[in-house]
Amino acid sequence: MNSISYENLLHQLNAGKRAVMVTIVNDKNSESTTLSKKILLTEEDLESGNNNYNFDSEFYEKVKYALESGNLQFESSGKEIYLIEPYFPEPKLIILGGGHIAKPLVEFGAKVGFSVTVIDDRPSFANSKRFPDAENVICESFEKCFDLINLNPSTFVVIVTRGHRHDMDCLRQVLKYDTAYTGMIGSKRRVNGVMNQLLSEGYSKEKLDNVNAPIGLDIGAVTPEEIATSIIAQVISYRRLVASKNGIKKVTKANWPEFDRDVLIALSQEEKEPKAIITIISTKGSVPRKEGAKMIVYPHGKILGSIGGGCSEGSVINTARYILRNGGCKVESIDMTGYIAEEEGMVCGGIMDVFIEPF
Amino acid sequence: MNSISYENLLHQLNAGKRAVMVTIVNDKNSESTTLSKKILLTEEDLESGNNNYNFDSEFYEKVKYALESGNLQFESSGKEIYLIEPYFPEPKLIILGGGHIAKPLVEFGAKVGFSVTVIDDRPSFANSKRFPDAENVICESFEKCFDLINLNPSTFVVIVTRGHRHDMDCLRQVLKYDTAYTGMIGSKRRVNGVMNQLLSEGYSKEKLDNVNAPIGLDIGAVTPEEIATSIIAQVISYRRLVASKNGIKKVTKANWPEFDRDVLIALSQEEKEPKAIITIISTKGSVPRKEGAKMIVYPHGKILGSIGGGCSEGSVINTARYILRNGGCKVESIDMTGYIAEEEGMVCGGIMDVFIEPF
Repeated sequence: MNSISYENLLHQLNAGKRAVMVTIVNDKNSESTTLSKKILLTEEDLESGNNNYNFDSEFYEKVKYALESGNLQFESSGKEIYLIEPYFPEPKLIILGGGHIAKPLVEFGAKVGFSVTVIDDRPSFANSKRFPDAENVICESFEKCFDLINLNPSTFVVIVTRGHRHDMDCLRQVLKYDTAYTGMIGSKRRVNGVMNQLLSEGYSKEKLDNVNAPIGLDIGAVTPEEIATSIIAQVISYRRLVASKNGIKKVTKANWPEFDRDVLIALSQEEKEPKAIITIISTKGSVPRKEGAKMIVYPHGKILGSIGGGCSEGSVINTARYILRNGGCKVESIDMTGYIAEEEGMVCGGIMDVFIEPF
Repeated sequence: MNSISYENLLHQLNAGKRAVMVTIVNDKNSESTTLSKKILLTEEDLESGNNNYNFDSEFYEKVKYALESGNLQFESSGKEIYLIEPYFPEPKLIILGGGHIAKPLVEFGAKVGFSVTVIDDRPSFANSKRFPDAENVICESFEKCFDLINLNPSTFVVIVTRGHRHDMDCLRQVLKYDTAYTGMIGSKRRVNGVMNQLLSEGYSKEKLDNVNAPIGLDIGAVTPEEIATSIIAQVISYRRLVASKNGIKKVTKANWPEFDRDVLIALSQEEKEPKAIITIISTKGSVPRKEGAKMIVYPHGKILGSIGGGCSEGSVINTARYILRNGGCKVESIDMTGYIAEEEGMVCGGIMDVFIEPF
């Protein structure tokens, strides 16, 4: 049953939608059986006010808050435990054009955590040897490539083709979708020309105003590397500060939760082997992974995913294996002060709480 | 004689000062002898209005303009050729603190063309294995390290140590110098505390106001990589847009001329072997190297430096060798349309003019 919730979750995320997974554990003290329920609420559910599961209004607000803020919430009161986990789709950076700006931009984009796709119609520019850090390199015409990519509210689109006609063709296509960010290169004069042309073709001024063109923050960038920096800085600001919604820019500093695709895929598959899930529910100080990061532990000690690596995982893995044998669930603290501080050069080490549950 | 001018130039650049080299060739048509004179005007010369060489006032203004704008000027009228070349020191990025922000910052800094130095007092953080892209990694206390580095108007200083006490100690030292950029990490509250403390110690408000703290552009950066991006974007804006002068921010888009240290070192050494210098004097469109880039050609075809690489250099090297045998000097155009466009993915190829002179 619960695996269906994760299957549904992956489906939402792949479509570029956010969702919230609510986990309700009904008896935290029982050592023999643990009944937990996983309920998925989609972006549509929460925006339309759907409350099929009859959550009380206070709880429902908490779920909505998770969707908006990206903050995980964990509550343990009486016999019930609630885990409210927001899931945001993996942020994707789509770069149209594989030229001299795309090269550093792919590097910077991958470095700051985007899954990067580059598209060009020339084989000598659209190849993975040229872009080792790109997740996808697509060699296709700028007309047909849009059938191969999935533009949605978590895709960030950068238009930097070799000429402003191709740029304009791309923009016409991109404007059909709701994206997290759209930027197009070009001088002020050229950009004005393109915008006037598209206005006259019937594209709305509101939509065109949302296009960042000339692209990038105004830092006086000259070289391709500097231009790529100005672009990626602007893209980050749209990821972290601006949630564009129906054309209205809303400034919120959303926490983009950690995302473990492999773990989610494993949870979405109905397997006979029992598993324990370890989820980071809160962190303090400097820790390598944040709230929402997940790891699966199997009975014989095999693990999938990571909550931070190294010696810090050992004791919680033991607890997980104990729970797999004996039932129940548990919150455990991991003190990483010292170890991480030394290894990673952080101001101070950190402490994190994890929730361990059978699945 | 001329090599002394280059020796002096290197001396100025190493001290972080700008300078202008004026080349006067007195007979461009003579095929047998070419008398050229190299005159170096330092930043001090030009700012104090020193005109020891009795340039007419129009020419003197051109030299001053070169110093301010970074633009090379070339004039060929009658029997005389003038080349007015600005030299800016290599921009240096000094990172105080080798922690989790320094790591991506070194990478980005090197990528956008800075010579990067990292300093930390812990050997496990101050080592070149951790920072393969850094030019210098210095393991020294934050008190003593300032004797080992040369802070000047072309150094960009980022203070990101592991604690705000070290940050404050560093800032006290940095404030003694005139730098191109100074930024210090920290929350608004912490930064305010540091600033108030330093004000009470007698540091001027004007100097403190020039410190970028909290550091970085406000893009909502969360992860170390994002914070490093926000910092390097701000550093670029100070390099390209803001020339801080006596505390007054002057917004000018200065062209930072190309810089070939190896070539300058060779020119500063008195050698018996004759050389020809090839200098890019103007470019149009997309070319791999810009105005001021230099290459030396020796009689037997050995070269030092590059004006763009590949097949485009072949014909000018031949001209240079001809000039080495027969005297004279020459301006030649190189059409890189096609070749570069294909190789580098630029919107269009470019054309550049080079000046070839015996030395």
